[in-house]
Formats: sequence, C-alpha cells, structure tokens
Amino acid sequence: MYRAPVEEIAFALKHVAGLSQAMEAGVFGDLGEDLVDAILEEAGKFASDQVAPLQKIGDEVGAQLKDAAVTMPAGWKDLYKRWTEGGWNGLSGPAEYGGQGLPTMLNVAALDMWNGAAMAFGLGPTLTMGAVEALDKHASQDLKDAYLEKLVSGEWMGTMNLTEPQAGSDLAALRARAERAPDGSYRIFGQKIFITYGEHDLTDNIIHLVLARLPDAPAGTRGISLFLVPKFLLDADGAPGERNDVFCASMEHKLGIHASPTCTMIFGDGFAGGREPGAVGYLIGEENKGLACMFTMMNNARLAVGMQGVAVAEAAYQKALGYARDRRQGKASAWTGDGMAPIVLHPDVQRNLLTMKALTQAARAIAYSCAYAIDLAHVSEGEEAERWSHRAGLLTPLAKAFSTDIGIEVASIGIQVHGGMGFIEETGAAAYYRDARIASIYEGTNGIQAIDLVARKLPLGGGDAVHDYIAELSEVIARVEAADNSGFGRTAEKLRDALDGVAETTRLLQTWMAQGRQDDALAGATPYLRQLSLAAGGAYLARAALADTGRVGLCRFYAENLLSEAAAMKARVEEGAESLAEAAKSLQAV
Amino acid sequence: MYRAPVEEIAFALKHVAGLSQAMEAGVFGDLGEDLVDAILEEAGKFASDQVAPLQKIGDEVGAQLKDAAVTMPAGWKDLYKRWTEGGWNGLSGPAEYGGQGLPTMLNVAALDMWNGAAMAFGLGPTLTMGAVEALDKHASQDLKDAYLEKLVSGEWMGTMNLTEPQAGSDLAALRARAERAPDGSYRIFGQKIFITYGEHDLTDNIIHLVLARLPDAPAGTRGISLFLVPKFLLDADGAPGERNDVFCASMEHKLGIHASPTCTMIFGDGFAGGREPGAVGYLIGEENKGLACMFTMMNNARLAVGMQGVAVAEAAYQKALGYARDRRQGKASAWTGDGMAPIVLHPDVQRNLLTMKALTQAARAIAYSCAYAIDLAHVSEGEEAERWSHRAGLLTPLAKAFSTDIGIEVASIGIQVHGGMGFIEETGAAAYYRDARIASIYEGTNGIQAIDLVARKLPLGGGDAVHDYIAELSEVIARVEAADNSGFGRTAEKLRDALDGVAETTRLLQTWMAQGRQDDALAGATPYLRQLSLAAGGAYLARAALADTGRVGLCRFYAENLLSEAAAMKARVEEGAESLAEAAKSLQAV
Repeated sequence: MYRAPVEEIAFALKHVAGLSQAMEAGVFGDLGEDLVDAILEEAGKFASDQVAPLQKIGDEVGAQLKDAAVTMPAGWKDLYKRWTEGGWNGLSGPAEYGGQGLPTMLNVAALDMWNGAAMAFGLGPTLTMGAVEALDKHASQDLKDAYLEKLVSGEWMGTMNLTEPQAGSDLAALRARAERAPDGSYRIFGQKIFITYGEHDLTDNIIHLVLARLPDAPAGTRGISLFLVPKFLLDADGAPGERNDVFCASMEHKLGIHASPTCTMIFGDGFAGGREPGAVGYLIGEENKGLACMFTMMNNARLAVGMQGVAVAEAAYQKALGYARDRRQGKASAWTGDGMAPIVLHPDVQRNLLTMKALTQAARAIAYSCAYAIDLAHVSEGEEAERWSHRAGLLTPLAKAFSTDIGIEVASIGIQVHGGMGFIEETGAAAYYRDARIASIYEGTNGIQAIDLVARKLPLGGGDAVHDYIAELSEVIARVEAADNSGFGRTAEKLRDALDGVAETTRLLQTWMAQGRQDDALAGATPYLRQLSLAAGGAYLARAALADTGRVGLCRFYAENLLSEAAAMKARVEEGAESLAEAAKSLQAV
Repeated sequence: MYRAPVEEIAFALKHVAGLSQAMEAGVFGDLGEDLVDAILEEAGKFASDQVAPLQKIGDEVGAQLKDAAVTMPAGWKDLYKRWTEGGWNGLSGPAEYGGQGLPTMLNVAALDMWNGAAMAFGLGPTLTMGAVEALDKHASQDLKDAYLEKLVSGEWMGTMNLTEPQAGSDLAALRARAERAPDGSYRIFGQKIFITYGEHDLTDNIIHLVLARLPDAPAGTRGISLFLVPKFLLDADGAPGERNDVFCASMEHKLGIHASPTCTMIFGDGFAGGREPGAVGYLIGEENKGLACMFTMMNNARLAVGMQGVAVAEAAYQKALGYARDRRQGKASAWTGDGMAPIVLHPDVQRNLLTMKALTQAARAIAYSCAYAIDLAHVSEGEEAERWSHRAGLLTPLAKAFSTDIGIEVASIGIQVHGGMGFIEETGAAAYYRDARIASIYEGTNGIQAIDLVARKLPLGGGDAVHDYIAELSEVIARVEAADNSGFGRTAEKLRDALDGVAETTRLLQTWMAQGRQDDALAGATPYLRQLSLAAGGAYLARAALADTGRVGLCRFYAENLLSEAAAMKARVEEGAESLAEAAKSLQAV
C-alpha cells in the first residue's frame, strides 16, 4: 500500500524547490527545518496509516446518492473528522481565522501525500481551501466572520460552482441568474453540473461558491458575479439552521475518483418547500466582478490539481516497484538467487520504472517550485513580489498540465509493469489509471493551460519572465560540468540542448504573438508546454543530483532518455499552424 | 455509436497494404474487387447494426459467474449465433472444414470492425481462429475430423490455456501436468489463469488448448506439450456428451472488456464427480513440441490483438469527432454561424483529433501490411515465400505493440476531447480507455514484442529483411517529391529523416547484437519499435496520399508533427544500456 514518500518530498522541497535557501535567508520568519520535518513526518504518517487504507473502499463502493443526500463510503466521515482535528485543513490557512499560516509549499507537500493516499479524499479539501482563499481576499468582513473559521478548520467544506451544461471551458456562456433581495442578499436560480463534493455527509454545512448573472449584467464574462450559497442558512448563533434552496439532483457515474461525489446542483427550484423559491446567496466582492474572485480560487486549484497528477504518479510508481521486486519471472544476468529472477532485474521493466520515477520527480519539482514562487510573491514586496508573482503565473500551467499528463502516463506504465495483474481491479494499479484521467480535464483542460501559458504567461514582465526562468534553470549546466562526475554521462550536453531549444521556441512564439500570428503560436501551445516542462524537469533533476550524488543516475537516465522528447516537441512548435489548419479541413465535413 | 469505417478499411487494404496490386497480379486466384467490397460492406453492416449496439450492455453488465457457469450479457448469445450464421467465424478458415479460405487480410479487416464495435465481442472468436490454425497445422486427422468443422463454423469456441500464476511471460515455468492414459489419451491436471472466454454460454462446447508437461518431460520450454481438452467429451456421434473434468473456478473483475470472461480454469480436480479425476486431453502434434504448436496460435493472435488496438482507436476517434462537431463552446475565427462555435473548430481540439486519426491510420496500415505479408507468404513459394514470411515476422511485433500502444493513447486523447463528459461512464469514451488497456499486455507484453523485434526479427534474412522493408518504404519519398503538390509541405524531407534514421539505428542494433552487446541492443528495443513504426506509418500515409489527394493534409500533419517523435526515439536507442543500467541500481534496494 501507498507510503507517503516523506524523505523524497522533504528533499524536493528543501534542495530542489528552494525551501532551505529561503529559510536560511529568513524569508519565512522563524520557520525552521525542525518544524518542516515534523510537519511532513506527521502528514506522512496520517496519509500512510489513515488515508491510504480507505482508498480501496472509496474506489469500490464510492459515494452513494439517495433522495438528494450523498452518503460517503464507510469510514470516510471519521477519517475526515480526524484529519480536520489534526489541523491539516488549515495548514496554510489564514492565522486570523484559526489557520496555521504556513507556506503554500508545505500545504502542497501535504496535498502530495493526501492525494497519493487517496485522490478522491485529497480533492475535497482542495475546494475548501480555494473557497477560503476567495473569501479571505474578496468577501466582506461579515461573510468572513460568519464562514471563514469553520472553512479553515474544515468543519464545513466549500465547493466551486462554475460549470453549466452549455458553459464548460467558456464561462461567458453562463446562464445561472441572481436576483437582488430587499435585505441585501440575493436569490440564485439555475443548474450547475460537475460540482465536486457538491453534496455529502462529511460536514454539517457545505458552502457553495456560485457564479451567476444579475438581471442587468453585461453579456459575457464581465457580467458574472460570485455568490456564497450555504447548504444551510446560519441561525442567529451562526450555526446551520434553515435548509437553503440548493439540492443535489443527480450524481455522475465516473471512470474514477468514485468516492468524490460529482453532483448536479439545482439552485432555486423551490424544492425546499415553505419559502419562496430561490437559493439565498451573498455577494462576494463586487457585482459583475465575480470572475476575478473565482480566478483566485482557480489558480490555487490548478496547482492543487497538478499535485494530484504528481501524487497518483508517485502512488502508481510505488505499487509498480513493489510488484516488480516481488514478482519473479524468467532469467536475468544480474540474478544470483534461486529460481526465477525478480522482474525488477529485467531491462524493459527497469526502463518502465525509471521512466515513472524520473517523470514523477520532474513534475514534483516543477509543482513545488510553483508553490515556492507563490510563497515568495507573498512575502516579498515591490518588484521582487512582481517577479515571483510572474514566476508563479508562469509555472502554474506547467504544474497543472505537465503533472496531470504524466500522472496518466505513469499510471498507465504502472499497469504495464504489472502485466496481466495490472488489468485486474483487485491489484489497485488500474484505479490509479482511472483516477488520474480526470486531472488533465478539470480546472481548465490541459489544452487551455497551454493556451494560458503561451497567450498570457509568455508576455509577463515584457516577455522577460520566461527567459529569466530559463536562464536560472540553465545555471545548473555549468555546475554539472564543474562537478566532474562521470556518472552524469552526457547530462550537461543534453540539458544545454533542451534549455537552448526551449529558449529558441520561446522567442519564436513571442515573435509570432507580436506579429499577430496567434494561430501559429497557439498551434504549438501544447507541445511547447511539454517542451518547457521537460527541460525544466531535467534542470531540477540535475539540481537534485548536485545536492545528493545518489541521484546522479536518475538524472542521467532522464537526460539521456527522456529529454530527447523535448527536441521532438521543439520541432512541432516550429511547424506553426499550417499543417494543422490544412489537415483540419477534413474534420469539419459532416 | 460506432459505424464500421468500410470505405477507409477498403482503401487501406487496397491502396496502402497492396491488395489491389496483388489481386491484379492474380495472386489470390479469382478474388476480385467486387467480392472484397461486398464482404467488407456486409461485415460493416453487421458490426455497425448488430455488434455495436451491444457494446454498452457488455461493458455495464459484463459476463457473470455463478456456480462455475458464466452467463453472457443479455443479447450476446443471439448476437454470436447470428454472427456465426453469417459465416464470419470461418472467413479465412480452411475450406476443407467449411471455411471460406479467404485471405487473412479480409479477416483482419473484419476484426477491425468486430473489435471497433465491441472489443469484448471481437476477442472471443480470435481465440477460436487461433485454435483452428493450431489444429489445422499440427493435429492428427482424427482430431481435425472431430473438432475442426465446428470450430471453423464457430458452433464451438476455442481457448488458449498458457498462463499459470508463476508462469506468465516465462512459459518455461509451466507446471500443469499431463499423464498418459492407457487408451492413448491423456489426463490433464493443474490450474490456468487469465483464460479468455474460458467459460461462457455462447456455445454448446468449448475446446481448450492447454499447455502441460508429461512426467518424463525435459525441464524448460522443451518439455511442454499441447493438448486439446474439450469442455464436453464427444459421444459416439461426435456431439457433446459427458462433462470433462475442467471447470471455471473464478472470473476476474477487470478494468475493461467486461463481457469477455477471464477465467481461472481448474483441470483434473475431480469436480465432475463419477469418474477418476483428470481432464481428458488429446495430444496435438508431438509430445514436448507443444510450444511450437502454440506459437502458431500466438503469431496470429498477436496480429489480431494489434487489430484491437487499431479498432478501439478508430472507435474512440469516431466518438470524439462526433462530440467535437456537436459540442459548442467559445469562439472560433472560422465560425460564421450563430452562438458558440463547434469545438471541432478550435486548434487544440483539431490537434487532438488529427493526432488520433493519423495514428489510427498509421497503425492500421502497418497491421494490414502484416496481414498482406502473411497472405503472400501463404500463396508464394521458395525464396519469395521466405521473403514474405520474414516480412510477416518483422511486422508482427509492430502490428501488435505499436497498434496497442496507440490504442491506449488515442482512447486517452478521446476522453480529453470530450472534456468533463469524457470522464462520465455514460458517454462511452471511458470504456475505450479501459478496454484498450489490456491489449498492450496480453499475447506477449509490448516489451516482449520489442525484444522479439530486436533479438529475433532484425536478424531475419541475414539482417537484410528489415533493410529491404525500409528501402521499400523509402521509395515513397521520391514519389512524394515527384507529385509536386505543395500540400505535402515538408513531408518528403521529414520522411527521409525518419527512414534514414531508422536505417541507422537498425544497423546500430544489428552491430551491437553481432558484437554480443545484447544489453545495449535490448535497452533500445522499445524505443526502436516505436521509431520503426512511426517511420513506417509515415510512409504508409504518404502512399495513401499519393493514391488519393484528399489525404495529403493528414499525411503532412503526421510528417510535420508526429514524425518528430521518431528522432527522439532514435536518440534513445543510440544511448544504449549504460544510463539505464546505472540508474536501475537504485531500484533494487529493498
């Protein structure tokens, strides 16, 4: 079963993403290595001993809907309660509402563990944390006072209600409507789909954050407002009281994350009876400025989803490695024991396992570096803050898309390592393959992440932010050369090719965008995101190897085997849109 | 729902794989285009109208085991009966036992359709066809007379019993035992796992082909014999009579192909009662020569499994394309209609769809070309027969591994095109992703296919067979240049790079093998298989484009976008084993 890779996570945080350096420089106040280690250790214990054992029932039984009420799998409610009592929900939550106010990096590291132990479990609190951030940044003091403490502690959970049947990636098409009520509150009407943890029995109240339009709102995304809609309205003491007019109408039957209830939510259908129809909602931020508030949630959610990719990859790798060490089949030159050799000695299996391991570490390094940038932006000021904010913006689509893509790839390779056993559900490898598949879709599909990267992140800092990042990554090359360690093989050369290559395509895309050749630039967005991520991953693995010589072998394997894909992606980016556009004509005939 | 792509299949058979040319040259006797078209048309109708509608219940309900009896999903028994009555089971079966004796190409094309409509359905008869071939080639006349006609018609189905818990990829580890009986028959004892269609209610009898060891057999693979073990022993009239001592002990709960019962079979446990324990079996071929007989089945089965990859990719592509044409979201410059644009107009979606389409066609071309080679080997004599036999041998691992890898990739992209809907089981896209996942594992994992390619197929014809193939593929480059069609863009250049590149790595691997550097060669086996397949696929798409200018765009898209991966694979092959071996040390510590 999954064991939280506490050492690996601590190493990546401290020596790859930069936490040690930052702590030494006093960036995080009196946060020291002891506390970091203690937190990671405890989180690891909880994830391994308490969360992981409930992954299987979560997958097999899943959440169950009956009469608009969702029952979570046996044991999950207790698990969640213990988890919140451990203070895990508020790890990075605002201190003034009971949170521990620790750096995002630590929360992201913890998410790595919760999701590795059971992605359907790790997912729920991610939404709550997003709601906390949106309220903390944008809500009125009254709303904060009424809701934040319980959301920070996890006593209540939060949700994010964006999607409607006709409005998925395109929020301009939203139709849910809000009407002003005489008392300053609002009444919300409409239907939302794919609402994660929209209904469940883990908590006494569920706080829905809902995008809707006011009657006099402008069309498009500038006419969207954000509302807080609690499942139960609060009574005079601030406790859950009257049932609000928001209900779960159905729950999806999904490929994976079965314990995460994905609900269709109906607002204002009068189902509550008694009162006039309309779900009571409270405005967050200003009218018609809801999208900006929601983006606060979404950016963090994107990094959190990226962690799901890393986490499932890690879990799939652990399972495959365990199987490969146990399972015996055939002969291997390195096997001196009796009988058949463990399959971990077969080169083909080794290639699969090392690919899984290297991609997982690369993705983790990118995601943690994104968290680092978020933290640095938070504690910095002026230009420095802007610089880190740009870095976080640049790395968010990488952390989301690359991690979730490799989550799927690694989980798939994990099945392969298991051979026929991988296809049997009992083994558990298939569940990772199923769970991982959603993460490249929700919180903005990976195609949208790539467009975000090229259209909105490459221009940051006048186009310099990305080049500064590539230059910073490139510093590792000289250090690899200086290390004079033959174990690095051709790592330096391969890294230089990859990083020079991505600097080139970056300039090309920036030029195309400046020339108004948006189609050419966007046609290459997805391969470019992959290229940049692969190059960055290589640099991070080199950084890791320089800090710990035990990691040189994996770094070299990555550089000499996996980095060649970056050149292939470069070639695709350079092709621009022409061949795509021409060939696509054949797709449109009906 | 899936519609058999009859035109596409006919085109690929005739103009890419070479059927038209061969028919014109009279290679297949009086087989003409009219008959080919009529067969494909009829198969297409059956697949689209009768098989495809039962995919969903097959997936949702699946096969059910109760008291050692497996019940197939509602409608499947009737479907199978109609299918056999249509003569589809014996399409390429031996004429002397009621088969139609048509070329393998046609049967492979039909498999493309059965599996596209429902892979769990297409899979069952594949085993029967393998059993037919093994019996036809190796069994005694008595056995042939007793069993072949009913297996060719499909009135009975066949199975392949190889795997045991300790013996998956390594058949040397087999333990099932056979004892000689006084009457010349044998008694079989042991347990077999992962037996596809090991038990079901589609037919009155099930004919198991079983590998087992005689008491005095040599150790390893040279001591394995092949036996025919019928579920029901035949009575004096050749009809199913007494129940044999072979039973289904359990059925796996799998990720996909739920309607295909995957059984643990127990031989000789005495469960039948009455008689002495021991499943009655009849020797096929000679004692201790069972593996050679089984390989007859396996080679064909490998191509058939490759077709599953192609077929699921095709089905996933159709579903994604249909969704992309219907689903409206956002704006697109090419959209002049009202409201939101169909997502098929978004470049990111187009890239996904074109990747799906191009990979599917490339894999289909390789698989059909393999079938062509099998057919040509069959009708040729002397050196020519050997040449085609080598070609078939060379293409079998490509047809199996590349097709099934892209089956998974394409099915995964298909989910992505659907966005959130792709993760909902009701949509049906996820079922392809689940079904496809087994095909890279069974009938020899794709890692084993790659080893087979490098270790056993590259040496064919003194090492010339593969170079002849690459040279033949390369002929298309000059034709593309001569076509003087600007729509080809940089296709010729990209194809030359890819084909020259694979000629280079081929020589390198052959040199390494000759030098005894097997580890270096095998470390590159999987990337090499991919490299060769990608290059071959590009050449086939160019051949298609030269035959039909409507296909130039897709050929160019493939050459300018997907072929760059071949160079990445080349780089991996050239690295040899060193970095893999070094890094792998970290995997072995417990």
